[in-house]
Amino acid sequence: MGWNSWDCYAATVNEEQLLRNAEYMQKNLLSFGWQYIVCDVQWYDPEPGTAESTYRPFAPLCMDEFSRLIPAERRFPSSAGGKGFAPIAGRIHDMGLQFGIHIMRGIPRQAAHSRTAIKGSDASAELIADPFSICKWNADMYGVDPNKDGAQEYYDSLFELYASWGVDYVKVDDICNTNMYPNRPYSAKAEVELIRRAIDRCGRPMVLSLSPGPAVIEQAWHLAEHANLWRITDDFWDNWNLLKDMFRRCEIWQAHVGPACWPDCDMLPLGRIGIGFHNPRFTNFTKDEQITMMTLWCVFRSPLMMGGELNDNNAWTLSLLTNREALAVSQQGGSPRQIARDDEEAIWGNRTEDGAIYLALFNLSDEPRTVSCSLSALDLEKASVRDVWAQTDEGVVENALSARLPPHGARLYRLL
Amino acid sequence: MGWNSWDCYAATVNEEQLLRNAEYMQKNLLSFGWQYIVCDVQWYDPEPGTAESTYRPFAPLCMDEFSRLIPAERRFPSSAGGKGFAPIAGRIHDMGLQFGIHIMRGIPRQAAHSRTAIKGSDASAELIADPFSICKWNADMYGVDPNKDGAQEYYDSLFELYASWGVDYVKVDDICNTNMYPNRPYSAKAEVELIRRAIDRCGRPMVLSLSPGPAVIEQAWHLAEHANLWRITDDFWDNWNLLKDMFRRCEIWQAHVGPACWPDCDMLPLGRIGIGFHNPRFTNFTKDEQITMMTLWCVFRSPLMMGGELNDNNAWTLSLLTNREALAVSQQGGSPRQIARDDEEAIWGNRTEDGAIYLALFNLSDEPRTVSCSLSALDLEKASVRDVWAQTDEGVVENALSARLPPHGARLYRLL
Amino acid sequence: MGWNSWDCYAATVNEEQLLRNAEYMQKNLLSFGWQYIVCDVQWYDPEPGTAESTYRPFAPLCMDEFSRLIPAERRFPSSAGGKGFAPIAGRIHDMGLQFGIHIMRGIPRQAAHSRTAIKGSDASAELIADPFSICKWNADMYGVDPNKDGAQEYYDSLFELYASWGVDYVKVDDICNTNMYPNRPYSAKAEVELIRRAIDRCGRPMVLSLSPGPAVIEQAWHLAEHANLWRITDDFWDNWNLLKDMFRRCEIWQAHVGPACWPDCDMLPLGRIGIGFHNPRFTNFTKDEQITMMTLWCVFRSPLMMGGELNDNNAWTLSLLTNREALAVSQQGGSPRQIARDDEEAIWGNRTEDGAIYLALFNLSDEPRTVSCSLSALDLEKASVRDVWAQTDEGVVENALSARLPPHGARLYRLL
Amino acid sequence: MGWNSWDCYAATVNEEQLLRNAEYMQKNLLSFGWQYIVCDVQWYDPEPGTAESTYRPFAPLCMDEFSRLIPAERRFPSSAGGKGFAPIAGRIHDMGLQFGIHIMRGIPRQAAHSRTAIKGSDASAELIADPFSICKWNADMYGVDPNKDGAQEYYDSLFELYASWGVDYVKVDDICNTNMYPNRPYSAKAEVELIRRAIDRCGRPMVLSLSPGPAVIEQAWHLAEHANLWRITDDFWDNWNLLKDMFRRCEIWQAHVGPACWPDCDMLPLGRIGIGFHNPRFTNFTKDEQITMMTLWCVFRSPLMMGGELNDNNAWTLSLLTNREALAVSQQGGSPRQIARDDEEAIWGNRTEDGAIYLALFNLSDEPRTVSCSLSALDLEKASVRDVWAQTDEGVVENALSARLPPHGARLYRLL
Repeated sequence: MGWNSWDCYAATVNEEQLLRNAEYMQKNLLSFGWQYIVCDVQWYDPEPGTAESTYRPFAPLCMDEFSRLIPAERRFPSSAGGKGFAPIAGRIHDMGLQFGIHIMRGIPRQAAHSRTAIKGSDASAELIADPFSICKWNADMYGVDPNKDGAQEYYDSLFELYASWGVDYVKVDDICNTNMYPNRPYSAKAEVELIRRAIDRCGRPMVLSLSPGPAVIEQAWHLAEHANLWRITDDFWDNWNLLKDMFRRCEIWQAHVGPACWPDCDMLPLGRIGIGFHNPRFTNFTKDEQITMMTLWCVFRSPLMMGGELNDNNAWTLSLLTNREALAVSQQGGSPRQIARDDEEAIWGNRTEDGAIYLALFNLSDEPRTVSCSLSALDLEKASVRDVWAQTDEGVVENALSARLPPHGARLYRLL
Repeated sequence: MGWNSWDCYAATVNEEQLLRNAEYMQKNLLSFGWQYIVCDVQWYDPEPGTAESTYRPFAPLCMDEFSRLIPAERRFPSSAGGKGFAPIAGRIHDMGLQFGIHIMRGIPRQAAHSRTAIKGSDASAELIADPFSICKWNADMYGVDPNKDGAQEYYDSLFELYASWGVDYVKVDDICNTNMYPNRPYSAKAEVELIRRAIDRCGRPMVLSLSPGPAVIEQAWHLAEHANLWRITDDFWDNWNLLKDMFRRCEIWQAHVGPACWPDCDMLPLGRIGIGFHNPRFTNFTKDEQITMMTLWCVFRSPLMMGGELNDNNAWTLSLLTNREALAVSQQGGSPRQIARDDEEAIWGNRTEDGAIYLALFNLSDEPRTVSCSLSALDLEKASVRDVWAQTDEGVVENALSARLPPHGARLYRLL
Repeated sequence: MGWNSWDCYAATVNEEQLLRNAEYMQKNLLSFGWQYIVCDVQWYDPEPGTAESTYRPFAPLCMDEFSRLIPAERRFPSSAGGKGFAPIAGRIHDMGLQFGIHIMRGIPRQAAHSRTAIKGSDASAELIADPFSICKWNADMYGVDPNKDGAQEYYDSLFELYASWGVDYVKVDDICNTNMYPNRPYSAKAEVELIRRAIDRCGRPMVLSLSPGPAVIEQAWHLAEHANLWRITDDFWDNWNLLKDMFRRCEIWQAHVGPACWPDCDMLPLGRIGIGFHNPRFTNFTKDEQITMMTLWCVFRSPLMMGGELNDNNAWTLSLLTNREALAVSQQGGSPRQIARDDEEAIWGNRTEDGAIYLALFNLSDEPRTVSCSLSALDLEKASVRDVWAQTDEGVVENALSARLPPHGARLYRLL
Repeated sequence: MGWNSWDCYAATVNEEQLLRNAEYMQKNLLSFGWQYIVCDVQWYDPEPGTAESTYRPFAPLCMDEFSRLIPAERRFPSSAGGKGFAPIAGRIHDMGLQFGIHIMRGIPRQAAHSRTAIKGSDASAELIADPFSICKWNADMYGVDPNKDGAQEYYDSLFELYASWGVDYVKVDDICNTNMYPNRPYSAKAEVELIRRAIDRCGRPMVLSLSPGPAVIEQAWHLAEHANLWRITDDFWDNWNLLKDMFRRCEIWQAHVGPACWPDCDMLPLGRIGIGFHNPRFTNFTKDEQITMMTLWCVFRSPLMMGGELNDNNAWTLSLLTNREALAVSQQGGSPRQIARDDEEAIWGNRTEDGAIYLALFNLSDEPRTVSCSLSALDLEKASVRDVWAQTDEGVVENALSARLPPHGARLYRLL
């Protein structure tokens, strides 16, 4: 549970924005379990992308003498003098929070073409860079050939640096959907293993998050062994079709949830978003769709990363993030189970350690619809029912639980 | 653990062959846990296929008045007078064994074209048959459209019949690899659900086995919920390329093994096979390859179904089926884990309930090769080692376990 | 150039409808070159499909003793007494027109399951039917295995029958897009060759038209050698997206037009259509879209087959079918050439034998748009220009020709 | 008809090698029509690739101040002082021959990363380079974004330079199989159009050859309009499977041969090849296979580019290149036609302007085989027959022409 800068600030986030979201989190969310502040992509570009394109190809990036990207001082003033993200991490830690960063897999193209050094290795950048391994949407990096001398040393040097900064969470991008990179002579999984080993060696525990999705289900076992969370979808935004499609994705991944393994439905595009994309807005999701999203993310136990500028939250948005009963199934639930799904509706269940059963009913259609679930599907005959979002007790129900749901709407029940 | 008639008798198996394999099993294998005798495909064709083709298109099949296929009396004399498989099942039960049959999903094409009745329904066969749902290799059946009235009743009537015969195990074919049938207006999963429901209603417990593979990994959750075993490969035969490829398949499915859920590597083509294919032979696998196969099947906990004519077993073949230590990891193991794999070698581990760790080393290359596994990969520092197939104690090993393996060879160790 | 019953009457056309369209054609269209009257699918089903489904699976079809389908007397009364389509063909010939029929490739499933005879062969139907070769949308037939004795004899007997009826044009369905049938042990082209040979032997010239598309461009050479027209698209209807997509298809096939080789854009859904689909309507195309369609079909030289009920034509619809200058490029044009195309506009040219150059400008966008073509692209410096649809002379133009076109609109110019 | 340095010298060819092959051609081949000397890939790398890899990633390449690659003086001494290939072209022209070069599409990566200038444009290299458009096997270049200002100017400046050198033929690589590059926001055809326009503007006629294949048949019309020859296959080598597969490719492309349009079967790996690949050898093709290759290339009218070191030709190799009757169908033939093909044999025909019919019989099987062609397939009843390779008259044949052919062998007949 945390906040990530992408949905609101794209590639443009700066020190002041990170810290003010941290302060908001400390004050309003920490007591509910929210704790990570994650700085997303391209913090090393002094003049990040504009309205026409998120990234600037061939932009000169801030880099140290060991081919390692460092924060752009222009955007993160406290990084001046080679201090990197250490000052920001320190302030965030002082608030009782955790600090995370985003990186692209690989080594900067500019390092390879200028043949710069790698710490701890005789190899220089062009000797470990794979000129045929490029990201499809961002031109900063070349992939690292894992079979080359210096490849592990390069990643070790990266995470040594991040550990020295006090980083608690790393989101590695361009690495999760390995189907994107089928034509190299080595397995796409090898670069994940380089990173896992570098984290294990760096002397500081770090959560490892892999992007972008969709992750490849044939490799669920490998993801579970090497990472903590992994995206099961390409970038998720405030668009109903994407939300509806997430039900299909969660169905597929339901057998791979926890412990310490989190198929990731991506950030929550709630509240005020799109600022760094020159398209600032309050989320396009209706309130019913927001309930649907929060219900699915909680019952499925997806990681919860808020995407909107926290300081612009209104009471409604804040209420979605602070419903202790909904968060309980997200944080203390067991294995989620899809009970039914077709094009019109979906039903999911989960059970928390204290024996409570959570039942979620979803209306995926564009019309009002009554959705029902037989209690026998949960091995129950009757149950006392609480509506989690309405925070109302509904009394005892026998046989089946039904609800009239608005289009794109959902209800989350807690059954005892 | 059982025996299946396909590898030795193809579509031609008869009563005498079933019973003599049952007798062998009772005498030689039952005490090791082997118990199922399964009659494979097309027991309803009085004159089954010849050397040129396994099946006879447009052959008139034995069928009752309710569009249900019944055993061909010519091949199964005890079925005369409408007794079906009941007499054979009875004799097998008397030996302390279990009886299984193979069926193709769907309803006979001949039933649809002659508009025969369905028990318990006003619909006749042509009303539930889907003329566009056909098997790719056998022309006996049309698929059943699950949305039609009479579809569930048809399957209910099938399993009612099988229960009355005393069937303990059903292998349903042409249903597991749902990617084969992408173009119908209903989900390919629906026919599995019809069958699951029919079994639950039939009043007799039956193991449900789905073929052919490769099963679709996105539907692992659905298979686990509705079936007991499901094939992860197309038909497996005594061919090294198929065996080597099984390592890739087991890698993918390792997270989905047990309890009561068995990704299935298919029958063991050991001993004398190919008789019904007009290609009788002792398995083409070398002894090293047989060890490799048995080791993988056991450590991965694949179902074990012997494919060869049991009465032709030699001492070597029998020894492979009666190694109690190897069978122990198959039957009492936990979740298998692939520790390493590349094109040259593979390493797998598993742990039984009694705390023993099984470690399997495989040489997948065509040259002799030393394969090693660090004990730290098993969270061990040292272990006392037993070679399961050689049945020798190897003493205490520290740090790593290494073996010089012949081409295509394997070693299975039990570590304490 | 002709009329086909599908767009207006689906699988339900009858004798009276055929003849009244023939009469209209004789009176209003024959002098413009229109001459074929084609009876489309399933004239052998006495009670053809209803609103819910176009076809009736397992319907008993009218068939002679040689496994050959014959017209349903209930719908085509003059066929009584084994006369088949001969009386209808005779009346159409008397009007100076030509008569065509539609058939599905293969042999009736009902023939194979009832083992009926084949004329001129000892084989019966089940011996040449391939039980794995089925059409994806119509359940009447099994494909014929071209390697079986009796396969050529079956097709020879079909075309002998059609020749005896006086058929001039045969539209063979389920055969053109050979990519649909990849899994048979023989080439999908073989069934085309059986048909070509049967036509050559039948003693009557017949135009051979293959459906449905999209035809496979790798086999353009084979289509050109064995057929006269072949569909480059799946069924075409009065829908802008389908029409816009046709520009892509024509681009691909432009190098394969004529002589005697006609990539076919499918029927013209003009006038009153959809009657047999329980969705009667005047075409959904706007007048601009109709102009666009007619312009593309004429300049590309697609076969022109009118799909609407001719007797319901209004003056506008008739005017589209009787513009002699547009028909001139269709009938006397040379090789069409796409001069430019992007998502917003397209430009095509063609040259008739008399030296006239036809230039077609298309606005594919949803907004009004000016489309221009440099005369140098036609190797001209100046030209006297005639607007073909407006039938107006536009004077002499130099350098470039431009037109302001409405959304989805087109202009066809004749340049001298 | 010419010689290309790739098959013998890979990326390592030098001035001396070019000139000595030119001298051989002048003396031995020019009078038979051979005239092009083509310098293949990476003449701009001063230290080209070694045995392990053909190309050197991140190698510094010889480049002028306008981001244009120039010959490496170390390998082409006469290019010193900015003279480029002009001195070599001059010497080749003096021999009565034509000179060609190979280029990779795009702009050097090193130019983009060092932001060098483009002649005739304010844009510098990084502004027209597309960082996501890379070649799959050679890391020298980025593709050029055709929508950027400076893109056309860059290509114009290239061909202006090549014209100033006296280049007659340009083989552009990494551009023909447009299916390789599906994910850019512009059509892959656009870079071909930039090049076509640059050639038209450069003031010197140049033959445009596109590589590698397989070209995309849907774009046959575009290739015919913009290029002179285009590869229908990936690199072809002295391997029977590649040669057998060429029959499939020629089948597909037969409708697109000439005039001025040449589907290209790639170089002839005859004589001494593989020198620059550290695998020098005389061609692995048997003499029968060489006859088969030459026969197919000639009757199909593929471009003929000799791949072996000419000075190492023996009498047999030279005889294949100097058979005037075989070259006649290649150079004066009409449209080739595949008359038959299956897995065992193939038959092709072609007709020259003088009315002679060439008939080629091929045995594609691994056994001796008699291959026959009915003369009626050529619309002949009888013909006087000459065996082109044996240079013998075979007398008059009626009805059919048959030959007993060795495995992988062929016969080419000239019929009058």
